[in-house]
Amino acid sequence: MKKPIYFDHAATTPVCEEAFNEMKPYFTEIFGNPNSQHVFGREAVKAVDEARDKIASYINCKPSELYFTSGGTEGDNWALRGCARALKSKGKHLIISPIEHAAMITTAKALEKEGFEVSFMKVDSEGRVDLEHLQSIIREDTTFIGCMMANNEVGTIEPIKEIAKIAHEHNAVCFTDAVQAAGVLKIDVKDLGVDLMSMSSHKIYGPKGVGALYIRNGLLIESILTGGHQERMKRGGTTNVPGIVGFAKAFEIANRDLEKNFKYVSSLRDRFIDRVLNEVPFVKLNGPRENRLPANADFSFKYIEGESILFSLDLAGIAVSSGSACSSGSLEPSHVLLALGLPEGLAHGSIRFSFGKHNTIEEVDYAVDVIKSAVERLREMSPLFKKEEVIKNV
Amino acid sequence: MKKPIYFDHAATTPVCEEAFNEMKPYFTEIFGNPNSQHVFGREAVKAVDEARDKIASYINCKPSELYFTSGGTEGDNWALRGCARALKSKGKHLIISPIEHAAMITTAKALEKEGFEVSFMKVDSEGRVDLEHLQSIIREDTTFIGCMMANNEVGTIEPIKEIAKIAHEHNAVCFTDAVQAAGVLKIDVKDLGVDLMSMSSHKIYGPKGVGALYIRNGLLIESILTGGHQERMKRGGTTNVPGIVGFAKAFEIANRDLEKNFKYVSSLRDRFIDRVLNEVPFVKLNGPRENRLPANADFSFKYIEGESILFSLDLAGIAVSSGSACSSGSLEPSHVLLALGLPEGLAHGSIRFSFGKHNTIEEVDYAVDVIKSAVERLREMSPLFKKEEVIKNV
Repeated sequence: MKKPIYFDHAATTPVCEEAFNEMKPYFTEIFGNPNSQHVFGREAVKAVDEARDKIASYINCKPSELYFTSGGTEGDNWALRGCARALKSKGKHLIISPIEHAAMITTAKALEKEGFEVSFMKVDSEGRVDLEHLQSIIREDTTFIGCMMANNEVGTIEPIKEIAKIAHEHNAVCFTDAVQAAGVLKIDVKDLGVDLMSMSSHKIYGPKGVGALYIRNGLLIESILTGGHQERMKRGGTTNVPGIVGFAKAFEIANRDLEKNFKYVSSLRDRFIDRVLNEVPFVKLNGPRENRLPANADFSFKYIEGESILFSLDLAGIAVSSGSACSSGSLEPSHVLLALGLPEGLAHGSIRFSFGKHNTIEEVDYAVDVIKSAVERLREMSPLFKKEEVIKNV
Repeated sequence: MKKPIYFDHAATTPVCEEAFNEMKPYFTEIFGNPNSQHVFGREAVKAVDEARDKIASYINCKPSELYFTSGGTEGDNWALRGCARALKSKGKHLIISPIEHAAMITTAKALEKEGFEVSFMKVDSEGRVDLEHLQSIIREDTTFIGCMMANNEVGTIEPIKEIAKIAHEHNAVCFTDAVQAAGVLKIDVKDLGVDLMSMSSHKIYGPKGVGALYIRNGLLIESILTGGHQERMKRGGTTNVPGIVGFAKAFEIANRDLEKNFKYVSSLRDRFIDRVLNEVPFVKLNGPRENRLPANADFSFKYIEGESILFSLDLAGIAVSSGSACSSGSLEPSHVLLALGLPEGLAHGSIRFSFGKHNTIEEVDYAVDVIKSAVERLREMSPLFKKEEVIKNV
């Protein structure tokens, strides 16, 4: 069987060869626990220290401001729960964007049950945060403002620097989920001014099960995984040495090739978007044309359920996503698209294409051809589409 | 340089070849996100399902009762925090043993700040839980009783079945931390009657960064990592497919060779304990002779700081631990040894030796010889020892 085309890099990526080779000895040979006071432990400490130094340098923070986690979800949970609880004597009002990842939305809902109040900043029809609206909903008791750096579904890049500025003017902390942005966009946490930032390894050709949370020195937040002395006593659990080593190597490669990849992947995306908009009728690009993640193209196909296109593409050997992978399997419309103001029908009918550095222009062109015929065939079966056609022809 | 002898298997183990080979393709080839609705996702789902089925069968639970985590610490946190919060309308009293892992002790302390009350069951001088004392401290409002299956420092195997029975007679849930026991002792959660059990992969020749929590069907506990639909919506975060595959394979091997390893490793331990007790004066074996983990030997050397012996052994190419790896670097005496009633001096002077299936009798004998001369030399420098010698000789 021919290998399917993978257009779901926002869901996960394969571990790149360099990262895998770097990790390998840490499974079987240099296998010590960094907390051990002997040569095996010291080898492990050295590897973790080097990884921490590397990643810290790529985002311009101090190594002591970087805490390794099990991934983006843990980072999001830690930032939101940890800040909310640590700052509750100042206030219990939290603000997040309505297009955050499920790790933020679900956590915010859980915190509401603990007595916190959550407000959502508005986003425009392309998913960009409305800064004036944000200004208008901040209160004396607002302690936390959280917005992702770039949206995982529609690719919108958010004005994090401006959000951080507003947060600090009101004495609130600013968190950004950079899971989709780290390793893709150049990030400087000091320039952005954020207090916390979460990242994940497996979105940038590193291994699954590892990530990091940047916590600005001086900011005290509660831990959510308590235990031993790991991560300067802020995050218990045996340090995942091979995972961390692989993450750092993947980040190194991503950082080294950042401009090259950005240019190449966005050229694929632009060709894809242009062709789909030109050649497929009744289609809507979700998210902005400019100021969007290089890998992301998200379309709603009018009169068709997203799942139907997904299955047609799957049968044709093209792997894409309806909404985010994390909410796949859900029958609810995308909360992101609803926040952008799409009607339920279109919010159900969206497909996310996320390209990677190994994809080719031929793959992109093949996908457009498949989409054209699949959409045509599915619309032929759609009673909604026929009705609209009839109305048009009257 | 000669490879050092590794006697710290309770801290961590190398990934075994079989487990590593099993994991390998899941990094670079079968790399899909199990939440994705396409062929890459389905391959990943299949791998995770098979891993879950395997591990469930080894501990005799249903696959739907097994939740993958980032390791033992997350499992402990989830069980304790999740039960305490979910059951707080019934009561806010929690009972744990005083010799639990830091992941439990620190979490219990954090819960005290949330308004919970924590009591500790007594243990005897060998670390075994006093069941009568447990009976006497259970109250109407006790919701959670947690005790590790086997202690990580002194190796004591606890009467979990009896503890579970007592818990259920009082309508409390029973949790056991099986991080040191899973893959070493035969475990049947239904026979034991526990409601929750945490496990870790890297203690049984599997990869770091992965573990599992058994949660009895029907028991509702709060999540601590909220997010997407993963793990039947109880634990957010992209599934760590290679980690889980490696964990399951390591567990398979451990289960297959359980009796053989038990016999071999405990023979090394017994030889070691016998020789040390016979040949080194003023030494105390911590924990029981019988009913103890096959890998564990823990000694307090009177008149000497544990760290000094640790460094002597490290210089001689032998890697051991003072206390548990997770509290290494701490200057406090072991909370486990204090709970066993050891005076502070002896609680400071303990060394844990934990053997593995690849260790040899020659390594054990070499270690005894090194210990003998190191202890003699260190005591010669010890003012305390000299004083005692003088008193003896008067």
